[in-house]
Amino acid sequence: MSYGIVLKVLGSILTVESALMLPALAIAFYTNGHDRMAFLTTVIITGVVGFIISKKTPIKNNVNVKEGLAIVALGWILASLFGALPFYLSGSIPSYVDAVFETVSGFTTTGASILSNVEGLPHGILFWRSFTHWIGGMGILVFTIALLPVLGIGGFQIFKAESPGPTADKIMPRIKDTAKILYTTYFSITVLQVVLLKLGGMNLFDSMLHTFGTVGTGGFGIKNNSVAFYNSTYIHIIIGTFMLLSGINFSLYYSLFKGRWKDIFKNEELRLYLSIVLIAIIAITINLAMTSYAGIFRSLRDSFFQVSSIITTTGYTTANFDAWPSFSKIILFTLMFIGGCAGSTAGGIKVVRILILIKLIKRDIAKLFHPSAFISIKNSGKKVTDETIMSINGFFILYIMIFVISTIIISLEGLDIVSTSSAVAATLGNIGPGLGFVGPANNFGGFSPASKILFSFLMLLGRLEIFTSITLVLPKNWTREI
Amino acid sequence: MSYGIVLKVLGSILTVESALMLPALAIAFYTNGHDRMAFLTTVIITGVVGFIISKKTPIKNNVNVKEGLAIVALGWILASLFGALPFYLSGSIPSYVDAVFETVSGFTTTGASILSNVEGLPHGILFWRSFTHWIGGMGILVFTIALLPVLGIGGFQIFKAESPGPTADKIMPRIKDTAKILYTTYFSITVLQVVLLKLGGMNLFDSMLHTFGTVGTGGFGIKNNSVAFYNSTYIHIIIGTFMLLSGINFSLYYSLFKGRWKDIFKNEELRLYLSIVLIAIIAITINLAMTSYAGIFRSLRDSFFQVSSIITTTGYTTANFDAWPSFSKIILFTLMFIGGCAGSTAGGIKVVRILILIKLIKRDIAKLFHPSAFISIKNSGKKVTDETIMSINGFFILYIMIFVISTIIISLEGLDIVSTSSAVAATLGNIGPGLGFVGPANNFGGFSPASKILFSFLMLLGRLEIFTSITLVLPKNWTREI
Repeated sequence: MSYGIVLKVLGSILTVESALMLPALAIAFYTNGHDRMAFLTTVIITGVVGFIISKKTPIKNNVNVKEGLAIVALGWILASLFGALPFYLSGSIPSYVDAVFETVSGFTTTGASILSNVEGLPHGILFWRSFTHWIGGMGILVFTIALLPVLGIGGFQIFKAESPGPTADKIMPRIKDTAKILYTTYFSITVLQVVLLKLGGMNLFDSMLHTFGTVGTGGFGIKNNSVAFYNSTYIHIIIGTFMLLSGINFSLYYSLFKGRWKDIFKNEELRLYLSIVLIAIIAITINLAMTSYAGIFRSLRDSFFQVSSIITTTGYTTANFDAWPSFSKIILFTLMFIGGCAGSTAGGIKVVRILILIKLIKRDIAKLFHPSAFISIKNSGKKVTDETIMSINGFFILYIMIFVISTIIISLEGLDIVSTSSAVAATLGNIGPGLGFVGPANNFGGFSPASKILFSFLMLLGRLEIFTSITLVLPKNWTREI
Repeated sequence: MSYGIVLKVLGSILTVESALMLPALAIAFYTNGHDRMAFLTTVIITGVVGFIISKKTPIKNNVNVKEGLAIVALGWILASLFGALPFYLSGSIPSYVDAVFETVSGFTTTGASILSNVEGLPHGILFWRSFTHWIGGMGILVFTIALLPVLGIGGFQIFKAESPGPTADKIMPRIKDTAKILYTTYFSITVLQVVLLKLGGMNLFDSMLHTFGTVGTGGFGIKNNSVAFYNSTYIHIIIGTFMLLSGINFSLYYSLFKGRWKDIFKNEELRLYLSIVLIAIIAITINLAMTSYAGIFRSLRDSFFQVSSIITTTGYTTANFDAWPSFSKIILFTLMFIGGCAGSTAGGIKVVRILILIKLIKRDIAKLFHPSAFISIKNSGKKVTDETIMSINGFFILYIMIFVISTIIISLEGLDIVSTSSAVAATLGNIGPGLGFVGPANNFGGFSPASKILFSFLMLLGRLEIFTSITLVLPKNWTREI
């Protein structure tokens, strides 16, 4: 591994982060908030450290898989460690571990918070907190759609037709072109949602912050009772719809833009995603209406919002779903694991993996009867390779095992099983709120620092789809027999 | 499919079942119980129906995979429907659905009960109830160790060295030889445990019934508070130890008998099984002792018994573990999924599958760094084929999906999440008691008939390792593309 190139890129990431703090800095000064100096200090420290590290001249100019993974994993960690400084230095979050938790939660677009009173935060801090979602969402899109395919480890290519294989000199132009399309799409959706929220009577600041949390599928509320604060069906529908839109593979927006309707209608992941959403909304609406939670309209409204919020792993709430009947809660709990579509800003296992796992089971059963038959698995008309199947299998198994082991560890806190397991599911899946102790009406502030560090780690694991960050933890002697 | 051969074998199964009811009939008459006529009627009906069906002369004398699977699945269902008659006819269980639930629970060696007062049952009924565990345990051993390998669909061969491949004329002698060894081992362990319990001061009747529940890893208690009734460390240790022994692959006892020590020490599944047991016992003991549950000795005794009971999917209890701290409960909940070793009477996912899944993940991570490396997975020194890996993957995914979907359905009962999910886990894994509403102090009597039928189905799915019985439910057009 060439440490030169890794350090250079990490330095650039910090420099960019420093620049990305400038809007929050401006807001802090404009509102004359007590967070001014915290931002000024952080911008300078982050910028200077980033500049010094990035000055290192690397021996080579291209990255291999190992270096790419190191950059991504360390990049998210470093960005969080520096991004936490404004919270800590301004005194908004007195504990640095808590501040890091909140920042990791922001960048990973989780939205789990340790704060009980967000309405008391200064404007600059509020802006930075929600802006980390927006940055994180952008980051993960570039990572999964632009970077991963280039590194030859999966991902979702926009330019698959144009560029057959990754070659060293093609890497930079391809990333740049793909990233440009993503920027444009992401930015357009952002602007559209801000405008629509503004039209609904929300002020510009709140509209922007809610949009950051929506398109990044983050979910940091800027009111103590999240979106429930706005008792407006229009606003619930706008945010709910944009959450759903943000949970769709972003490369489909490129297809939409290019008028490739067939690509969209033929996309099996999208169809399964929308089917799950629809079934969940109907089931929960009926369950709520029948258990005298509310009338059918209110049940539908809350069901729509909560299903959209949970499956896209956003985490905004308009109702305390922790008080809903078990049936509705278990459906939401299941959605936490499913997550959104691959190539979106959503977390979780991802719908396309669930789709292929279901097909795999169908094939296994078919093989019972026709042991010698060769049945290939297809996704949206394209054959899925055995390697991809194995990696999806591995991902699912690892996801479940990490969930189980982390739940056992977190249970040492002495909370009930549902609170414990949903807290793990909500961080690993980048959702935010869970059930019980970490339900919509509560937060993660009550956990011990050790648990908060584990949760932060889980959020990163979930966000980086586990494999990329686990590489940093495990030994290197892969040549031995397993 | 040749229905002739299927009917013939099913008829024989019923005839054998009728004969297996004779001890209970004898006890009913000897004790002059009010269940005498119920047994007499059932023995006659079952025997006559079985005799008539088995009279059918089949066209051929060998079974193919499809017929084999149909025989196994229908055999368990039919045996349960007829085996339920004594409970129903004697009035011990007034509802036939409940009686079938109890019988399925018996034959599948689950041990989940709908009865709240078992001490009031007549002796014949009590004997038959526990005896179903013993029969079920024997049945599953013959099925997985003797029958499955012959049908060419996995399983664990004792005679693998001697008989290379399944050929029609070799089938019967091989099943018979393997089965004979199993009978002998099973019988020897049974006698040994009865003697040891008798030496501990338990009467012969109770010793036999507890032994049936232990070696079959069933767990029907014959006292209202299960094994907690016997406040004897000796009895707890004997039952706890024999549960652990019954969770080990029975072909290893053949190795032991043949003096093949190397086979035993080299067996990776056994090592992982014992490691999990040891770690779980220590973790729970410390957790209990530290949360002022009891002194260290009592904590160790209860932890040992409960870990043995749950991982082997037996379900006997000496303590109300539902009142234990979350950490201990979550460990037990996890053990419900792991289960015992393959080729034992235990249920669950099975340790060997967990072992291979762990190795699979290790390989996937290794492949991230050496994409072109060929790394083969071995189990106890033998290469695991890609087909086996795929089938283990499929099993794990299907197990989790069935668990999730069933939990959603059962949640319509309106119980809390932990009760609902543990009830599903406890039936699918053939354990018996779960947590909360189905905890050690409670039973399954409170569920609706629909849920009881679903639970019965789950017990069968779990016992038959899902695939064999799912074949009966799904359509047959396997040739289409998935």
